[in-house]
Amino acid sequence: MSDFTMILEADRRLGPVVRRTPLLSSPFLDEIAGKRVLVKAECLQHTGSFKFRGGYSAVSALDPEIRSRGVLAYSSGNHAQGVARAAQMHGVPAVIIMPSDAPALKIANTRAMGAEVVLYDRAGESREEIGNTLARDRGLTLIKPYDEPQVIAGQGTCGLEIAAQAIEEGVRDADVLVCCGGGGLSSGIALALEADAPGLRVRTCEPEGFDDTARSLASGSRQSNAAATGSICDAILTPSPGEITFPILKRLAGPGLAVSDAECRRAMALAFLRLKIVVEPGGAAALAAALFRPDQIPGDTVIAVATGGNVDPALFADVLANDL
Amino acid sequence: MSDFTMILEADRRLGPVVRRTPLLSSPFLDEIAGKRVLVKAECLQHTGSFKFRGGYSAVSALDPEIRSRGVLAYSSGNHAQGVARAAQMHGVPAVIIMPSDAPALKIANTRAMGAEVVLYDRAGESREEIGNTLARDRGLTLIKPYDEPQVIAGQGTCGLEIAAQAIEEGVRDADVLVCCGGGGLSSGIALALEADAPGLRVRTCEPEGFDDTARSLASGSRQSNAAATGSICDAILTPSPGEITFPILKRLAGPGLAVSDAECRRAMALAFLRLKIVVEPGGAAALAAALFRPDQIPGDTVIAVATGGNVDPALFADVLANDL
Repeated sequence: MSDFTMILEADRRLGPVVRRTPLLSSPFLDEIAGKRVLVKAECLQHTGSFKFRGGYSAVSALDPEIRSRGVLAYSSGNHAQGVARAAQMHGVPAVIIMPSDAPALKIANTRAMGAEVVLYDRAGESREEIGNTLARDRGLTLIKPYDEPQVIAGQGTCGLEIAAQAIEEGVRDADVLVCCGGGGLSSGIALALEADAPGLRVRTCEPEGFDDTARSLASGSRQSNAAATGSICDAILTPSPGEITFPILKRLAGPGLAVSDAECRRAMALAFLRLKIVVEPGGAAALAAALFRPDQIPGDTVIAVATGGNVDPALFADVLANDL
Repeated sequence: MSDFTMILEADRRLGPVVRRTPLLSSPFLDEIAGKRVLVKAECLQHTGSFKFRGGYSAVSALDPEIRSRGVLAYSSGNHAQGVARAAQMHGVPAVIIMPSDAPALKIANTRAMGAEVVLYDRAGESREEIGNTLARDRGLTLIKPYDEPQVIAGQGTCGLEIAAQAIEEGVRDADVLVCCGGGGLSSGIALALEADAPGLRVRTCEPEGFDDTARSLASGSRQSNAAATGSICDAILTPSPGEITFPILKRLAGPGLAVSDAECRRAMALAFLRLKIVVEPGGAAALAAALFRPDQIPGDTVIAVATGGNVDPALFADVLANDL
């Protein structure tokens, strides 16, 4: 359902508003990896993660009449902020359904972007029921976080930039490591690279124990994780690859990589020290793989996407104190 | 001695190697300032500060025969790293003279960039004597940190980017706040803007108590600071404006702004939270002025240069714990 033409159309809509994030590097990181490491700093995107691309793509693709009634998202994290900001920029209402135990800062941030936050009790209430009722009563359109063609197309615009920037850097063949939850970003980038830079290949990066995509790619069918929580990489702990994203990944990406929480922390610390960027745990998985799994990565250059920077300041301070 | 043509020539030499740093923004920062705040993230430059521009400009401008003998710099900070990296990229020797009590990490970083580090005792030795002897014996060329036309021209390339990026953002009239030590960056940017974006005006930003440039601009002649140390903004504690830089600033820049250490710390914390960049104390002075001195800044948009990100991890962690 998603294809390269949709990515080009999303890119045209995003063009005036998206931030073309830089490709960063450091000789110190190259030395650790034993190869050239290029880091696509998507943590510098609006709202602090690539999710703005997909959110804006989806909101901007709606029929204006339907859009004007508003949009709805379930999320306590980066997708919520991406959708809220996109709705704000379009001047339409956004309702974000968040668990009542979400961090106060995230709730405040989402409200500050003009969204209405509806809280639900994780234990006793169904967010889908609440969402369905709201959507029906108000005519809101649900924006899913990854299994939605316009979201995948929006994330794919990051791949267009990677293709162009790789050429500027003289890179024609390399693995492109992408932190992976449901697979929206990795499948979007894979579609863009297939058309624009066929020498670049997407490889998903996940936390150890939550490598559903890596196992799915290896087995050829969608696998699930045994647990739902238990890694600091909260942004990418999705139970299994998406229905729409997985066939794209199966055709174009892999093998998947997995890294430890300790390696993600170390990658966060090194991104602070050597690149001067703030990366959240799940957003550092690809850089961790680039730095600490070089034996699993062919070639003399690797591209890693730093997908987000929305990290709790106390956790970040702890990483600086203990992982440098 | 420095002029716009030199900046264009420096830009041609730097073109293939310099990082075009992004102009970042956040609605949360706009709300604090009560106006639109655009942040030129020069902390993302090679070596973590704008100093790479000037160092590379100066090294690349040397006659190849003279350059091959090597370059020399006095610095324990960002200028040393900029010169060392520029020399490394040209394949020529760099000697950096640093105080023996400089942080071990800075010494190690400078060595890791291929430079020879010569340590001296601040109390008992003269770095100039050591430098002069080395320069004479080995034929090294001294690269001064700011009172050097090719260094000013290199820093001016940052101004070319600001001019172009401001136009992309639809900004024609704004103050451009620049963290200021000796004035190399602010004078270079001022020359570039004079030619490329005459509606943009440079204003220097310094720590309170070390506002030699602001007082010099107010009085019309070069003033000095009473103290040499006593602010966390170590990178910009220069005794007085440069001989070459001040006449440029006097003609094109000001009035100067001054901010407190507490405001710089708060700006560092907000840059972490809202922009996902790492900024050092002296590199945050311009953002601090943009956020906390809006009454001294006319217009509805301000541009602040975040000049560097080479901050001690323990200090950064302390800022996250106490200034958010």
